[in-house]
Amino acid sequence: MTTNLTADSGRTVLDTEFPSIDGARLLRRLDELNAHGAIDGGGVCRLALTDADRSGRDWTVAQMRALGMEVTIDAIGNGVAIHAGHENLPPVMVGSHIDTVRTGGRYDGNYGVMAGLEVVAALRDAGVRLRRPLAIAFFTNEEGARFQPDMMGSLVYVGGMPLDEALAAGGIDGSTVGAELERIGYRGDAPIGRPEVDSFVELHIEQGPVLDRMGVEIGVVEGVQGISWTEFVLEGVSNHAGTTPMALRHDAGYCAARIATFVRDLALRYDGRQIGTVGAIRFEPNLINVIPNRATFTVDLRNTDGTALAQAEAEVLAFAHQTCATEGVALRQRSLARFEPVAFDPLVTDLVQRHSDALGLSTLRMPSGAGHDAQMLARVCPAGMIFVPSVGGLSHNVREFTEPADLMRGAQLLMRVVVSLANRP
Amino acid sequence: MTTNLTADSGRTVLDTEFPSIDGARLLRRLDELNAHGAIDGGGVCRLALTDADRSGRDWTVAQMRALGMEVTIDAIGNGVAIHAGHENLPPVMVGSHIDTVRTGGRYDGNYGVMAGLEVVAALRDAGVRLRRPLAIAFFTNEEGARFQPDMMGSLVYVGGMPLDEALAAGGIDGSTVGAELERIGYRGDAPIGRPEVDSFVELHIEQGPVLDRMGVEIGVVEGVQGISWTEFVLEGVSNHAGTTPMALRHDAGYCAARIATFVRDLALRYDGRQIGTVGAIRFEPNLINVIPNRATFTVDLRNTDGTALAQAEAEVLAFAHQTCATEGVALRQRSLARFEPVAFDPLVTDLVQRHSDALGLSTLRMPSGAGHDAQMLARVCPAGMIFVPSVGGLSHNVREFTEPADLMRGAQLLMRVVVSLANRP
Repeated sequence: MTTNLTADSGRTVLDTEFPSIDGARLLRRLDELNAHGAIDGGGVCRLALTDADRSGRDWTVAQMRALGMEVTIDAIGNGVAIHAGHENLPPVMVGSHIDTVRTGGRYDGNYGVMAGLEVVAALRDAGVRLRRPLAIAFFTNEEGARFQPDMMGSLVYVGGMPLDEALAAGGIDGSTVGAELERIGYRGDAPIGRPEVDSFVELHIEQGPVLDRMGVEIGVVEGVQGISWTEFVLEGVSNHAGTTPMALRHDAGYCAARIATFVRDLALRYDGRQIGTVGAIRFEPNLINVIPNRATFTVDLRNTDGTALAQAEAEVLAFAHQTCATEGVALRQRSLARFEPVAFDPLVTDLVQRHSDALGLSTLRMPSGAGHDAQMLARVCPAGMIFVPSVGGLSHNVREFTEPADLMRGAQLLMRVVVSLANRP
Repeated sequence: MTTNLTADSGRTVLDTEFPSIDGARLLRRLDELNAHGAIDGGGVCRLALTDADRSGRDWTVAQMRALGMEVTIDAIGNGVAIHAGHENLPPVMVGSHIDTVRTGGRYDGNYGVMAGLEVVAALRDAGVRLRRPLAIAFFTNEEGARFQPDMMGSLVYVGGMPLDEALAAGGIDGSTVGAELERIGYRGDAPIGRPEVDSFVELHIEQGPVLDRMGVEIGVVEGVQGISWTEFVLEGVSNHAGTTPMALRHDAGYCAARIATFVRDLALRYDGRQIGTVGAIRFEPNLINVIPNRATFTVDLRNTDGTALAQAEAEVLAFAHQTCATEGVALRQRSLARFEPVAFDPLVTDLVQRHSDALGLSTLRMPSGAGHDAQMLARVCPAGMIFVPSVGGLSHNVREFTEPADLMRGAQLLMRVVVSLANRP
């Protein structure tokens, strides 16, 4: 199958003329998508490659086709829809992901894909075509909440991870990516990394409190923090909690708690750009009166400065080894994911800044605290991101919320940036 | 049903004449009991009132009956078997429990019950009766690993907990004590607290490393540590681990880790008699890239000094409140079990000491680090315990081990103490 990248119909818009997005239609699509996998509290659970994810994918693909777009699915399950341009050039791509964490919100990822649909719908309504084709992508397993690493689909798309390795990745429930893709019918036949992309723009909620607290409308995202995810497994000796003198213990649980507090203290000790989180922990046998013989936990470290991030990793590892050695507890660790900090391309960030200014929107130049598919696309083309505020900074939480006016502002800004990218010489 | 407490047959032994126990028979009974609920590594999983516990109870009751003992089961599932005496007096009781933790060893509790059977078997073999009847008890849910509080059966036996409350206690698996007793057929009809007990002796492995490390054969147990079990539930706010600045977090998991390390530091800061353990913990949603909004964990504090124990509890609670207040995390806690330190009766401890000396056994006067049914019986009669060494101090562990020679020595000592108690004027 060859995707049709050009079309003769439709007039070309000028760089000073931008169709208006239909905000109500954007909100409606968000509502409809989020009926798939809806959970109590207004949130969404569409863990990657589950039935709920399949259901959301099916609905999204149908929406794309209803806009006259050709949709391809590649072997890692990434979906790409093409709105043809006047010329047979690599497309300008927008998009994000529609998988969520277990206690996911309505906007994380979904907003970027739905805004892409709205941009195409508005272009169609206005009867215009752009010089370059426009692609909308939804990438597989961005969250990493079921399979690791996160950002898997976009990582594979840009050649950063072999397909076979990604397909073999095991899930928290014993499944594998490959088997689950087959099961839900999303192991497609499109070649990996096609189409080649001219440039990439991801519109996303901030997922942090900065824009909301400062009252700023748009975040001009200059780059993404480096991310380091490590799993530690500590092996001590289980023993009766009442009869074993403190000095004779090999308490894996105590070591885990001590390392967790070290992670927190380290993040505070470094400057404000260091983040450290212990989000998951498990003791065995996990009984009130038995000293844990095993503790398994994760450490999530992030920094915009790659050197500082490596220093933080080294400090945590050294402290963990030292603590465990003192307690007579064995330690092993494995990296679950690691990405260096990414700087976005001025081609995109300058357009985001310029069009924000033209629309009279207040802006803050900022890094992204979360990992995003855009950082993967940045390996192969000029890429960037637009942030809109998250109320209270809540995300990965069913109460995640962005004001409708902010959602609409962001989509209109995306329209202008996309038109400028697609029509540039 | 009236239990027959007297018998005319059999001669009375003198206080200087003690039948010899059959060590091989004792070991064989331990093996046979521990086939019920055997798990990998040589351990046992007979969580209270499970099918494995029923199976072990059925076997034990059959052994008692085979020794000509009358067995009664009371409404909380305690089993009591009577070896009749010459006179209709309250019996001297021995025994312990046969439930285990999930990763239980072969000796904890089981040894005391099997040694009781061996004492009765040896008395029968020698054709002797004692002045007072001899009772062997196995008490329900001593471990507290499935239902709380621990030592439930003996606590109810001595009137320390209303039967209804114990029957309503909920298990870690959503079951209740009452429903599970019904299910396994051990909600008996014997009245609670009957028979009244003359005195109580519990033979037990130390479950700690002290005797083993010092090379001492017998622990003359002078009392039991006070025990305080508390469950803490911390409620913070879940949020994206990459985008939420450290200073704006409400991280329930961090607070739990900080409190866990405080518990450890406190135990070290107090003198060597303070014990502190965080054995169980759970984060929610327990994902690598989400700040935990909830952390649930247990704190186990023990001390032989009741004042120091109360001080430790107060310090942990104050630190927990302070930590959570600083982090904007809500805290609630509930007591899962609390027992003041117990001092055993010199009637029993002196006999244990005297007969150890007579047998040429080395002794150490020591407190018990673990809670035991004997501390409950101490509320209603003179009670005491005999400890034998645990190799490496391991307990609540499938590798729990006591040398056969130590098991036999302890049982022979129990025979002498029981004869002296039962024949005293």
